[in-house]
Amino acid sequence: MSARIAVLGLGEAGSTFARSLAVHTAVTGWDPFAAAEVEGVRLAASGEEAVADADAVLAFTTAAHSADALTTTIAAAPRAAVHADFATAAPVAKVELADRAAAAGIRFADAAIMAPVRKGADRTPVLLSGDAEATADLRAILRDAGYLVEVLDGPAGTSAARKLLRSMLVKGLTGVMVESLRAAEAQGLSDWFAEHLVETLAGLDRPTLAGLLDGTRQHSGRRIEEMEAAAEMAEATGGRADIARAVAEVLRSVATDGVPDGGRL
Amino acid sequence: MSARIAVLGLGEAGSTFARSLAVHTAVTGWDPFAAAEVEGVRLAASGEEAVADADAVLAFTTAAHSADALTTTIAAAPRAAVHADFATAAPVAKVELADRAAAAGIRFADAAIMAPVRKGADRTPVLLSGDAEATADLRAILRDAGYLVEVLDGPAGTSAARKLLRSMLVKGLTGVMVESLRAAEAQGLSDWFAEHLVETLAGLDRPTLAGLLDGTRQHSGRRIEEMEAAAEMAEATGGRADIARAVAEVLRSVATDGVPDGGRL
Repeated sequence: MSARIAVLGLGEAGSTFARSLAVHTAVTGWDPFAAAEVEGVRLAASGEEAVADADAVLAFTTAAHSADALTTTIAAAPRAAVHADFATAAPVAKVELADRAAAAGIRFADAAIMAPVRKGADRTPVLLSGDAEATADLRAILRDAGYLVEVLDGPAGTSAARKLLRSMLVKGLTGVMVESLRAAEAQGLSDWFAEHLVETLAGLDRPTLAGLLDGTRQHSGRRIEEMEAAAEMAEATGGRADIARAVAEVLRSVATDGVPDGGRL
Repeated sequence: MSARIAVLGLGEAGSTFARSLAVHTAVTGWDPFAAAEVEGVRLAASGEEAVADADAVLAFTTAAHSADALTTTIAAAPRAAVHADFATAAPVAKVELADRAAAAGIRFADAAIMAPVRKGADRTPVLLSGDAEATADLRAILRDAGYLVEVLDGPAGTSAARKLLRSMLVKGLTGVMVESLRAAEAQGLSDWFAEHLVETLAGLDRPTLAGLLDGTRQHSGRRIEEMEAAAEMAEATGGRADIARAVAEVLRSVATDGVPDGGRL
């Protein structure tokens, strides 16, 4: 496959994809802010120029700029080009983009990157959903460059839902780390806590995770008090406890809404 | 060491400790709600009777009942008895208990259980702080029964602070799991997400954890949008997003307050 590819947005993800795709095929890049060269990639003077002869446009923008990127593709790309939106956005937003693309004769794919894009790493897992031909074409392009591509049987928004669930998990965990490390710092316990955190999190396995859910089922009442005590401790030194307070709310809801089935874990 | 021990509160933790201590020494237990036998433990008719000749009183109550347990010890235990409070509470609450105990001639220890107490498990790590003689005596008692005891060089509240930081981490993670598993269920993605969750969390190591903090430092702006999109998705199906919203707040605070030093990880 020797598709002409345009990459809109040359931040961390965009430049990584552009560089790895350029080893196999012609890639034109454009970014309103990034003037830096990307190895093997021809830089265009405008988005419209970048997409003018593209078979596939890969848009790596934030959700706020997804619509602008699609506007560029609709304005200047050949009809029947594939527009792949890699932004992390709500499924409903992906559906809106897909509808706009379809009305303009552009084939739309909802793409989600499911692991951190490390510099030069090309074994990154990517989920695709949307137009069947568009996702098949994109899969071929991305696989040539070494990406681990899975096409989901579903409309635009299907990949986005999985990506956002992953975000709730990974960014949620990260938020918990940031808040608790800050509280530890305020207690003069940074060194001890950083080690405890690594030991605890690096030691997680399936039975331990299932045990956390079971424990929540049994002890949610006591844990509400525990999280409130933790929040008081953090706030007593002028710190924040947004997440600890939110966890207390979630624990309160267990009485009425239960705990999701841990048996699956 | 053949101390006479009273255990107040025979829930999961209290009964586990009482049972394992009773293998080595005389243990009297009392619980206003639990009438169930605990192997090897003499059940008293009242808290006062339980502590009447105790060298050490181990109180396993919720934070809300810690003061009641100490009142029982002050009312009926021999002077110079050790009162160990195992409740998970704010450090300031432990300091108040220690002051009350000291005024009454009772030696106080702030005790924290640092891992789930599984049925019959006796390798549970316990942190002790407070009166030096009291913590030394308690350490001897608990070590005889197989507990992994660490005495911290600090007043009452020192153990509690570490325990609450652990709670922020472990219950925070559990809250994230509950909220994201619920959202997955609402999207019809329970099975996929449960597997993804286990793979992601069971695969954590020190570099990955440090990478999560580094990524937050670099991309907090984009991640605020991401968490808001995730919250919208969860709420669109009538679900909750307390933690996702709180994580967005924490990410907002990164611009002014920074990210705790990930270098220590």
